[in-house]
Amino acid sequence: MAAAVTRKKLIIDTDPGIDDAMAIFVALRSPELEVLGLTTTFGNVHTALATRNALHLLETVGRTDIPVAEGSHVTIKKATKLRIASSCHGSDGLGNQNFSPPKTKPVDQSAAAFLVDQASLHPGQVTVVALGPLTNLALALELDPSFAKKVGQIVILGGAYSVNGNVNPAAESNIFGDPDAADIVFTSGADILAVGINVTQQVILSDADREKLEQSDSKYARYLCKILRHYFDYHREVYFRKGVYLHDPTAVLAAVEPSLMTYTEGIVRVQTVGITKGLTVFNHTKKRYAWNTAWSGMPTVKVAATVDAPAVVEMMMQRMMADD
Amino acid sequence: MAAAVTRKKLIIDTDPGIDDAMAIFVALRSPELEVLGLTTTFGNVHTALATRNALHLLETVGRTDIPVAEGSHVTIKKATKLRIASSCHGSDGLGNQNFSPPKTKPVDQSAAAFLVDQASLHPGQVTVVALGPLTNLALALELDPSFAKKVGQIVILGGAYSVNGNVNPAAESNIFGDPDAADIVFTSGADILAVGINVTQQVILSDADREKLEQSDSKYARYLCKILRHYFDYHREVYFRKGVYLHDPTAVLAAVEPSLMTYTEGIVRVQTVGITKGLTVFNHTKKRYAWNTAWSGMPTVKVAATVDAPAVVEMMMQRMMADD
Repeated sequence: MAAAVTRKKLIIDTDPGIDDAMAIFVALRSPELEVLGLTTTFGNVHTALATRNALHLLETVGRTDIPVAEGSHVTIKKATKLRIASSCHGSDGLGNQNFSPPKTKPVDQSAAAFLVDQASLHPGQVTVVALGPLTNLALALELDPSFAKKVGQIVILGGAYSVNGNVNPAAESNIFGDPDAADIVFTSGADILAVGINVTQQVILSDADREKLEQSDSKYARYLCKILRHYFDYHREVYFRKGVYLHDPTAVLAAVEPSLMTYTEGIVRVQTVGITKGLTVFNHTKKRYAWNTAWSGMPTVKVAATVDAPAVVEMMMQRMMADD
Repeated sequence: MAAAVTRKKLIIDTDPGIDDAMAIFVALRSPELEVLGLTTTFGNVHTALATRNALHLLETVGRTDIPVAEGSHVTIKKATKLRIASSCHGSDGLGNQNFSPPKTKPVDQSAAAFLVDQASLHPGQVTVVALGPLTNLALALELDPSFAKKVGQIVILGGAYSVNGNVNPAAESNIFGDPDAADIVFTSGADILAVGINVTQQVILSDADREKLEQSDSKYARYLCKILRHYFDYHREVYFRKGVYLHDPTAVLAAVEPSLMTYTEGIVRVQTVGITKGLTVFNHTKKRYAWNTAWSGMPTVKVAATVDAPAVVEMMMQRMMADD
């Protein structure tokens, strides 16, 4: 199997989450990827529930060979008052479906330690797709400052670049969840690709797409249809939108096929206090200042600028509906 | 003189400043406007020097009939450590030309009191064009909360909407100068039109335009050519740009002829602390949130979105070069 040789090693840092479930399934169904593990974080749910859901999702599709490492229960500054997006994902994070608890358990290693170990084991070869607040990645950088260079690429689902946020007009949800951690990661010097809501809110799964999924025999599609109802309801009630944003799957597909998007390069810093807490300010480096700013000398990152939205939706659909 | 009947009453809040000088001259040369007075603020220079320069500019063109009211020397929160843009305008604010001190004096009334008095005298009819930090306008609102409704329109030259700032990637200079004052003004409920650097950095006076100005016999053009050299040098050295931004004259011309721009409407709040201090976050009100944010329930303002830049430059040139 020649394809297997070139598979990209992937760790998904995740807070499942309905679109996290979709993203994890897309990764599992992508022959281009080898999923090394899932690490869990808070965001759509608290971390304990994220771990439970990660294990549950892997059990559901018979992939208990993939380890789950539990991440931080608090922000990098140890704040315990977290913003949890249960209204969007249901109080269980998976559309209030009352699934049975998983039988499997997380590995006996923290998410940060797992990230550092895997990056050390496969230097320059591990891609981390971060689908929640960036606490675990900031902790990995604290644990091993060389992590920034050992990790291959970090795909961050987070930020709102030149558009309003989704928590408030300034901030996007994942960055808002731990802005201090996000600023550490964005300025770490790692190879970073940020996919913000300016891109993911263009990628919409329609009612018609969902109907197609419902006709599929794939266990992935069948499972997703159960949990998607709540997500569709939320988008209709809050955003007046028929269809749902494919935030998390888009980030995974950016790792699979970078040509689905175009990118711009610059320096991202995160505001950590005040009414714009969680705001990502992108400095395109061609703009000149006559003095030093908080952006001066910081490493650049890539930020997704445009997306081939129909291609992303089609790829997601194909991978969910293909025969098991 | 029928035109005189419909002239718009204007007060310019100003920190001259090379482009302030251009803006004041454009206003004086606009038959559509009646300049009620100048109020002074810090920004390009300290307030004392702004007052001196305002008086000097009016003397230079023989318009000492127009009163100058001196404004605050400190921010609304009484900060005395101010950011002064002397590198751009010269240490005297007018291109280091060593002009003689003015013979005239400011009126015996603060800028805030003058603004309140004029707005009360001509309710709904006074347009204030604010070319510096918004301290005086915030003080006017403190002095008389009904000022927001008594004033006709406030044209704010300030903010960076969907683009990087000019002080740093987050903040534009005038808003950065007193972010607390700016947030008070933007949320005051007054009829506000904000013209940001996303618009004014498209309006460029070229070397060729300056050469044309140099051939004019108008005293306005002759004076400006003296002080413009420093401004051109600064733009070439810092921005690698041949030509200068017409920030302040653009704001005055927005008051003269609103159709030079298109506008979008929404809520602007200003970040007052941290690395994005001075950032203007525009919330276009069509974006929905399922909860209250710091923008919720705040009054909307108009923000310039596009500009007919050649028309603005041409209008500026014509008014400067017309016979005295």
